[in-house]
Amino acid sequence: MKDNKSIIINIIGRGNVASHLFKAFESIEGISPVIVNPHTFEGFNPEATVTIISVTDNAIADICLRLPRTKSIIVHTSGSTPIDILSGRLEPKGVFYPFQTFSKEKALDYSTIPFFIEASDTATEQFLMNLASKISTNVHKADSVKRRSIHVAGVYACNFVNYLWSISDTILQKQGIDFNVLLPLIQETLDKTAIMKPMDGQTGPAVRHDTETIKAHLDFLKENGASEDAIKIYNLITASIMNSYPRIDSKK
Amino acid sequence: MKDNKSIIINIIGRGNVASHLFKAFESIEGISPVIVNPHTFEGFNPEATVTIISVTDNAIADICLRLPRTKSIIVHTSGSTPIDILSGRLEPKGVFYPFQTFSKEKALDYSTIPFFIEASDTATEQFLMNLASKISTNVHKADSVKRRSIHVAGVYACNFVNYLWSISDTILQKQGIDFNVLLPLIQETLDKTAIMKPMDGQTGPAVRHDTETIKAHLDFLKENGASEDAIKIYNLITASIMNSYPRIDSKK
Repeated sequence: MKDNKSIIINIIGRGNVASHLFKAFESIEGISPVIVNPHTFEGFNPEATVTIISVTDNAIADICLRLPRTKSIIVHTSGSTPIDILSGRLEPKGVFYPFQTFSKEKALDYSTIPFFIEASDTATEQFLMNLASKISTNVHKADSVKRRSIHVAGVYACNFVNYLWSISDTILQKQGIDFNVLLPLIQETLDKTAIMKPMDGQTGPAVRHDTETIKAHLDFLKENGASEDAIKIYNLITASIMNSYPRIDSKK
Repeated sequence: MKDNKSIIINIIGRGNVASHLFKAFESIEGISPVIVNPHTFEGFNPEATVTIISVTDNAIADICLRLPRTKSIIVHTSGSTPIDILSGRLEPKGVFYPFQTFSKEKALDYSTIPFFIEASDTATEQFLMNLASKISTNVHKADSVKRRSIHVAGVYACNFVNYLWSISDTILQKQGIDFNVLLPLIQETLDKTAIMKPMDGQTGPAVRHDTETIKAHLDFLKENGASEDAIKIYNLITASIMNSYPRIDSKK
């Protein structure tokens, strides 16, 4: 279905984000993505409309400098890197940040992924907003500060959360219990955020100031070989919840 | 549809668990739940087959002692309380623990809620397993140690996780961004646990040992008025992830 009017997109990178962006664009009529080798620039099309640098954060600057001359808009896909890192180039510049965790082996519904767009000028911004809208219905503008806040929030909400799930899994494994038993509880905790703020939906022994249960949990963790880190995390988050919430009556 | 052969269930308590158990049983043919006032025992039916004590953990012992004479099995619904707390009674005893977070205002699909059952004898265990199976397809046996491990795991996986979501929400709010932008990422992180262990799906700057991004995040948090606790939590979990994972190449 590709015709002469195709938008050609150089996607520089071989990681998960690059390969998922390729898949997402490949299915859109009128868009021709090409994967470009980040070391040799093999595959690079200087006539492309957009060049997406999708490599690890600390490699962006170098790739950007070494990029062959092109007429295309140059963007990176990093949540925590300012647009300024591209400022050595004369081409229009932007950021094209898909806010999702990408694994090579797992298919994704791209249409729901939030994209955050920043650009060096209004026309470029509009173009990138339109481009993102071709694969997602969840496209936003965000300058570098907003993007960083989203990235940091994602670290707490996703990376750290996943780590807590690892700790839970380890605790359950020792008793021969599958992580699956947690899923309805986790899903409900997540679904609750649709009807109330997480802050208003807090439950558990800490928010109840139930020091007896907290002590029993800590004893259990120590007696069952929990790691020192797991215990430190229990203590810190429990203390923080108790600080954040005034003493209230039973909440379960 | 209630007939003479109905199983009558006393549900002692006025909290979220009690009211949800009432709703769940009320819809089952052949089961007649009654809500019992935990202070006056008004409504208590001594002929009931089961009496469910569903009150805060530290009130169970007292309710149990004061309970009118009855022929029914006596159970509590607490994740972190041993069955022994009921040992002052001569009646058959058990634990009937629904592993879910209950809010009064939110409807639930009871059929997916994991129930964990313990009992003083095999016949009672079998009866309680059958009873739970009438409302859920996710019923397990679990002695007091297993039950405590599930409860502790739930604190990390649900209570602590919700607290991290609160922190994320606070960070985003300051930039005028809605918590909703996190939902696809969180849902994907959760869905990934179905195909890989959380430990194998860890992503983010800490697991990549990306100290530059970590420093940028900490600077951002300090400059944007994050609480001391939020920063402590960032530091502790980041350090713990870095301890848990050997240095690897780019993972995004």
